[in-house]
Amino acid sequence: MVPLRLFFDFISPYAYLAWTQIDALAARHGREVELVPTLFAALLEANGQLGPAEIPRKRAYIFKDVVRSAHVLGVAMRPPTAHPFNPLLGLRICCIDLEPAVRARVVDALFRAVWAGGPGITEPAVVARLLDAAGLDGTALVANATTDEVKQRLRARSDEALALGVFGVPSILVDGELFWGLDSLPHVERRLQGRDPIDGTDVAAWLGMPAQATRRR
Amino acid sequence: MVPLRLFFDFISPYAYLAWTQIDALAARHGREVELVPTLFAALLEANGQLGPAEIPRKRAYIFKDVVRSAHVLGVAMRPPTAHPFNPLLGLRICCIDLEPAVRARVVDALFRAVWAGGPGITEPAVVARLLDAAGLDGTALVANATTDEVKQRLRARSDEALALGVFGVPSILVDGELFWGLDSLPHVERRLQGRDPIDGTDVAAWLGMPAQATRRR
Repeated sequence: MVPLRLFFDFISPYAYLAWTQIDALAARHGREVELVPTLFAALLEANGQLGPAEIPRKRAYIFKDVVRSAHVLGVAMRPPTAHPFNPLLGLRICCIDLEPAVRARVVDALFRAVWAGGPGITEPAVVARLLDAAGLDGTALVANATTDEVKQRLRARSDEALALGVFGVPSILVDGELFWGLDSLPHVERRLQGRDPIDGTDVAAWLGMPAQATRRR
Repeated sequence: MVPLRLFFDFISPYAYLAWTQIDALAARHGREVELVPTLFAALLEANGQLGPAEIPRKRAYIFKDVVRSAHVLGVAMRPPTAHPFNPLLGLRICCIDLEPAVRARVVDALFRAVWAGGPGITEPAVVARLLDAAGLDGTALVANATTDEVKQRLRARSDEALALGVFGVPSILVDGELFWGLDSLPHVERRLQGRDPIDGTDVAAWLGMPAQATRRR
């Protein structure tokens, strides 16, 4: 079976919440999860779009929605030490060649360092220590994250995401079909059950509508 | 009891779906619904934001998500004749002084003219006829929509929405607490039941996080 691909960035609280759910969802359908670190800022840049945290009215609402969504899922969350923050170190560590199970432990430790009361993931020494505490070789992982090869790999992952149509995180690719957002997980589940209503829909009629008015920009 | 306030624009398929749900939701809690026509383009403009239909990768996804969400709710939808389109005539008609029950019928007829297989709401003669067919005085409504007073009233409604923190449609105001999006309706319901997890949360800690990195723009 083709794995589900989860496009994520540590910057996104919804990506964290999706991460807490995706393994169980995949397992219910006999799937693995492939983790794809993706620089959200690169997606915003390519799409000429602002992130939720860059629109003050939206930022104020979104974090309340995050608290509500976490509560519904029964996931404990704490406000990060800072937000937005620079996620590059964390994302690059996830681009190092690692066994899938090890990468999953790395991703979990880094996500929890941001969203579950940890010390954040911007300071190399702090990140090394928290990975050590998770039973990983934090010093080696942090050192290996700054090679040109690893940096280039993160750029390639983000470019690939864009080529697949990704515009936000979390996104989930299911056998070529893309889903976006924590709220899409029930739709992902229906797709895996073979009852995605898209299959009986004339999608082309929806996507081919003519534009009759556009804003001046 | 204070009514729920629904901020909507006919341009938004999610606003249509919220409209199909909000009366029943409100009735379950003994509430009325106050309908607030809001020009989505004015919200985008004020927030310096792009709408989903203005980001090609997002547009392609969103309409599939609309089909999926409609299916989950059991609401029949058809692609509009054009999208985006100019919603001003429809929104202005909703700003005319009307009894609440009449306004609700107007809103329903106009929403269905866009999202349920109707002829759209941009042509005055077409709009007059479809309002007639809904048992309303279409000719008078269309004529009254173009007065300076009504035009000004739509601007005032949109300004008021911005002042309340609204950044998108649909939004729902529940006793001073703002909710955004079709996906927020379960959160609205929990708030009305007195079990919104926000009430036990240190929201200030979430909203007061320092920014540690921002994008160059």
